[in-house]
Amino acid sequence: MNKKQKYAIGVDLGGTSIKLGIVSQTGKLINKISVKTEAEKGPKKVVEKIVQGIHDLNEKSKHKIDGIGIGCPGVVTPGKGIVENPPNLPGWNKVNIGKIISKEFKQRVFVDNDANAAAIGELTFGSGKKYKSFIMITLGTGVGGGIVMDKKIYHGDFGAAGEIGHISIDYNGPKCNCGSYGCIEAYAGNQYLRQRVREQLKNHPKSKMWKLIENDLSKVSPRNIQEAAESGDRFAQSVVEELGFQLGSAFTSLCNVLDISVFIMGGGIAGFGKPLFDSIKKTIAKKVMAPIRPRVRVLPAKLKNDAGIKGASALVFHHN
Amino acid sequence: MNKKQKYAIGVDLGGTSIKLGIVSQTGKLINKISVKTEAEKGPKKVVEKIVQGIHDLNEKSKHKIDGIGIGCPGVVTPGKGIVENPPNLPGWNKVNIGKIISKEFKQRVFVDNDANAAAIGELTFGSGKKYKSFIMITLGTGVGGGIVMDKKIYHGDFGAAGEIGHISIDYNGPKCNCGSYGCIEAYAGNQYLRQRVREQLKNHPKSKMWKLIENDLSKVSPRNIQEAAESGDRFAQSVVEELGFQLGSAFTSLCNVLDISVFIMGGGIAGFGKPLFDSIKKTIAKKVMAPIRPRVRVLPAKLKNDAGIKGASALVFHHN
Repeated sequence: MNKKQKYAIGVDLGGTSIKLGIVSQTGKLINKISVKTEAEKGPKKVVEKIVQGIHDLNEKSKHKIDGIGIGCPGVVTPGKGIVENPPNLPGWNKVNIGKIISKEFKQRVFVDNDANAAAIGELTFGSGKKYKSFIMITLGTGVGGGIVMDKKIYHGDFGAAGEIGHISIDYNGPKCNCGSYGCIEAYAGNQYLRQRVREQLKNHPKSKMWKLIENDLSKVSPRNIQEAAESGDRFAQSVVEELGFQLGSAFTSLCNVLDISVFIMGGGIAGFGKPLFDSIKKTIAKKVMAPIRPRVRVLPAKLKNDAGIKGASALVFHHN
Repeated sequence: MNKKQKYAIGVDLGGTSIKLGIVSQTGKLINKISVKTEAEKGPKKVVEKIVQGIHDLNEKSKHKIDGIGIGCPGVVTPGKGIVENPPNLPGWNKVNIGKIISKEFKQRVFVDNDANAAAIGELTFGSGKKYKSFIMITLGTGVGGGIVMDKKIYHGDFGAAGEIGHISIDYNGPKCNCGSYGCIEAYAGNQYLRQRVREQLKNHPKSKMWKLIENDLSKVSPRNIQEAAESGDRFAQSVVEELGFQLGSAFTSLCNVLDISVFIMGGGIAGFGKPLFDSIKKTIAKKVMAPIRPRVRVLPAKLKNDAGIKGASALVFHHN
């Protein structure tokens, strides 16, 4: 154990599981545990599980902890550690999780939205290290986002900023879960993408996808789209390319409005890799205002596994 | 003359004319002159005209000046007073106008993009006074924008931020001058709006517009669209309503991404007034993410005439 090294506990609170770990200042995961959230039992029970998890971690390890970082869904009041209406966590309404945890452990506790924590993770340990400003996009069931401006998370006046998934690319486009139309999430979100591919696939009877999904449309997934695309299937490749065009179009608007030109993408669908990134870059290069063009970067997130824990722990290190 | 009152000179540098004035700290315009830009004669000549204009103003008035503010087109390097490639000012490339003017007059000089100056004008003297953060939109030939975050202009890393006109609402939409597609400017910019109305009008032979334009499509203008709408012409009303739907859709994306929910609109087309503002508000209320909904405000700019001069002068007061 390096005595000069600092350590933090990162808590990644999700709707299904709570992942906790001790992370070093250099981003190394020392110890890790995972428990079921059992969100249906309500906030009190979930908070108890977090407390127990932190106790368990502390027992496993003799590292002196510098603070606790918590990444969670929903809107977090900037600097206050209060979580509001997190989706997938029924009954939360308003929970001052920061206060509860800091009281229990006599530690500094930093709470932020999970997408913001992911952005701070990349800023501290990952692909964002050398950039002053960037936008982090997490492509999963939803499309999450965090905006880093001048090495800090931009929270907006009420902590709700960074909803990159809900920038619309077509004001008359497909209906999004949020109530709006044509949000980029309604194209790139896992469910939406699968649904679209299912529909389009019917017009491509020769696609290799059919074999991969064993002729069962319910088996369409980002993984088999990627597999088909990599094996040269033209239809699957066009899906990836179109997705890049859509994401690139959304990123272009963000570049023009914010003069931020670095995009870091994580999450399952970012696994489409080079063909997706190339399509995004090509789109932005074609569309964005001329002065911004040479500065555009689209990079994969560096933190893969345990990105949630590491991002949460980075909330602590970033405050030092 | 109130001795405790502070005064600044505001310079509104446009492609056609340079407007200069002395403005009090409370936003009162004391003296004003206007000269032709004669942009074709190049930057040296234009800067000479600005210098001469400031001398003329100083001679006209005995007010002690606290500084000089300049609003100009193009990208201005934050804090440096260097103007880059302003559209409509040929040959400018890079001009350090801040340094030249401050050397000549031994005064503090603040330079910013004209849309940002308009935003600071509203923040200092107008509709933005009581808000921490808002987005200013100027609806003219182009659609300009300035983002105020936490009582300051957000410049972005390279000074190019705030191009609200180039947020796209349809990634496959009409081509915009900037090279992209479906930018809000390609709907709400003066030329684009007129062009669209000219085309649509052909399908509305009974519209009152025909009389107002004396059957000459080249005479379609925001003014006669407004006149027709106000006199109850259903076609003209639908144009205003649709424009509100388009602007409201763009503003929704901005709300979701930035958690800024106050919009201040100036410029000629904002003169469409209540029907336009109502349509925008209705659209945002329907589309924006639920937590933001109660906070949304869409307000007319308060500075009308001389907004350019007042905004430029506000660059000085805002720095005090």
